Amino acid sequence: MITLASDFGSPYPAAMKGAILKRCDARLVDIGHEFPRQNVRAAAFWLSQILPEFPPAVHLVVVDPGVGTDRAALVVRAGDHVLVGPDNGVLLPPARALASADGEYRDDIDAYEFEVDATRSATFHGRDVFAPGAAEVHETGIDRLPELEGLSPADEIVELELPEPELTENEVTGEVIAVDDFGNVITNIPGEVLGNRTVVRVNDEPTPIVRSYGHVEPDRAIVTIGSHGNVECAVNRGRGDEAFGLDAGEPVRLEFA
Amino acid sequence: MITLASDFGSPYPAAMKGAILKRCDARLVDIGHEFPRQNVRAAAFWLSQILPEFPPAVHLVVVDPGVGTDRAALVVRAGDHVLVGPDNGVLLPPARALASADGEYRDDIDAYEFEVDATRSATFHGRDVFAPGAAEVHETGIDRLPELEGLSPADEIVELELPEPELTENEVTGEVIAVDDFGNVITNIPGEVLGNRTVVRVNDEPTPIVRSYGHVEPDRAIVTIGSHGNVECAVNRGRGDEAFGLDAGEPVRLEFA
Amino acid sequence: MITLASDFGSPYPAAMKGAILKRCDARLVDIGHEFPRQNVRAAAFWLSQILPEFPPAVHLVVVDPGVGTDRAALVVRAGDHVLVGPDNGVLLPPARALASADGEYRDDIDAYEFEVDATRSATFHGRDVFAPGAAEVHETGIDRLPELEGLSPADEIVELELPEPELTENEVTGEVIAVDDFGNVITNIPGEVLGNRTVVRVNDEPTPIVRSYGHVEPDRAIVTIGSHGNVECAVNRGRGDEAFGLDAGEPVRLEFA
Repeated sequence: MITLASDFGSPYPAAMKGAILKRCDARLVDIGHEFPRQNVRAAAFWLSQILPEFPPAVHLVVVDPGVGTDRAALVVRAGDHVLVGPDNGVLLPPARALASADGEYRDDIDAYEFEVDATRSATFHGRDVFAPGAAEVHETGIDRLPELEGLSPADEIVELELPEPELTENEVTGEVIAVDDFGNVITNIPGEVLGNRTVVRVNDEPTPIVRSYGHVEPDRAIVTIGSHGNVECAVNRGRGDEAFGLDAGEPVRLEFA
Repeated sequence: MITLASDFGSPYPAAMKGAILKRCDARLVDIGHEFPRQNVRAAAFWLSQILPEFPPAVHLVVVDPGVGTDRAALVVRAGDHVLVGPDNGVLLPPARALASADGEYRDDIDAYEFEVDATRSATFHGRDVFAPGAAEVHETGIDRLPELEGLSPADEIVELELPEPELTENEVTGEVIAVDDFGNVITNIPGEVLGNRTVVRVNDEPTPIVRSYGHVEPDRAIVTIGSHGNVECAVNRGRGDEAFGLDAGEPVRLEFA
Repeated sequence: MITLASDFGSPYPAAMKGAILKRCDARLVDIGHEFPRQNVRAAAFWLSQILPEFPPAVHLVVVDPGVGTDRAALVVRAGDHVLVGPDNGVLLPPARALASADGEYRDDIDAYEFEVDATRSATFHGRDVFAPGAAEVHETGIDRLPELEGLSPADEIVELELPEPELTENEVTGEVIAVDDFGNVITNIPGEVLGNRTVVRVNDEPTPIVRSYGHVEPDRAIVTIGSHGNVECAVNRGRGDEAFGLDAGEPVRLEFA
């Protein structure tokens, strides 16, 4: 199985599928191609959430603002999974999530560089470099990765700097990681900080804490723990980003009375 | 085969696919994940149109504004098909369409509740409840559904109230069910009311009735019978919703001279 | 394998998939369903780029502003591929690209008309005519196409008039074919005209020519040769269409100093 994730929109992902299917007949599954454009951190967050839902697979990830520059191309083995994509930090967070079985992190990650043949294009390595690479990795199989021609161990790979929330006794300051398609505002604040409280001030606005959206009337703002385990600011049957005035990258301050 | 329909946008549907593929290797087909958010009636309409095009399958349907509340989770057998989703009315209209073979309705529907294990999340039952449920139904097979552990007959399930058009001798008042991505305005008025007429007043505006969009000049407004069999207000190579000033849920009055 | 391309958005493509899967169990791959609505030229461009990436397949193409009029339905064999869609010009450019193996054009194209049974609908031939046609072609196989019942050689089929760029010594005037989802402005001007130059005036604005987006600072406008081989006007990590004020169909003038 090969999964595909990118910020390409439509129809470029189909060119990657063609390039794969010319080389192997793997099952293809789209993770999504609407990731915020060229936003490596948002993609790393979403992939960390979603890829561990999958059985062992090759995951092709192309969020690549540095296409055509000299950034390396990587193959990263994480547990029984393999990621293929650019060396810009997008692969390591999901690799760590994939290497955490049963909630326990195991240091079971190998990274390799592979040679980029950019004779065909300088602007579409998804089609010309990474998709063929993913197909080759799929056909080789995870156990024989080290034997794959053109692959060499990567000494140092790019590490994303992810912002950590700051906790004091009665206050947490974090950041919006992503806004989903419902308008739910996903923060980097772990849900545990909410404890058993029933109310919290979000950027000065007192807001009820509930288990799920439908526990308040339509159009009411809430704070909840999202499916990702983090604090989420939302509106029942409405858009949290609009109600809270929050967008990706912006700070969020929670105060407990 | 398992089909997937939701109002999730991207990338949440991929988490459901992963959850299914961890449990079985069914063929997956997307019905669509851009259904109007939390609009149970619009989803019920579209699914009634599209699911009967498919061969026997398990249909996973997650338009679920009540996620995390105590609404039940359902498995509904309809003819040779099975639907899996929340008990909020979204499943019955497509179930009835699926149980109508050759245009003849047969009372061939069974409904079951299944136990919701919400220990993992309260906000993403698509991933944590319904996708695993669909995988289990798929692996069990339609003939052995009653034997499936955790399944019990559902005595009463939610029934959507769908608006019926009002017909008088020279007038019909109906409602817009949905606007499609072309901007075509789909009403709940059956196409038969148009008879052999060639013109009709739509909310006071005289409009030609034609067989298809291309039978008038570009940018001309028309009334036609859509592929769903209902009256549709459209514009050749343009947007009917803008020309007629109509959106989902709004009333439409047709007058015949 | 059957690929699907349309300007349908969501969820109509699923009805075509159901119609195919009722008739055969071919692998289905989406090319894209967000092609600019009813824009036959843009679809022909994108399909010429993407379909040749695929191994031999049946390609279902439904960008069909003339649905329900008397335009013919076509099956076009191009090399080892087959295209199925309306006779409005959308099929010939990708057919020629598919018939060009190793960059060499071979006159290896056959076109057939097939009978349209429009008893079911006049507005959704994707579901009622072309999808069943593609399934039948897939099951028959490319070698036995001429034996397929209802198929007859097409004497004359619609040819798109595609604008050619005008070249003088120091100037090229072309047209925007498409804007992709990144906002990159794709012109009909072949990349070769740029030669080894490092700067060009685009509609009077001096612009650097670079190999890829990341070779300039973020938000800087560039000209590059896109993955399609044509001149592309772009912005590193931004939108070229906004920076250059250009949209599909508009003229582009390149001047070399």
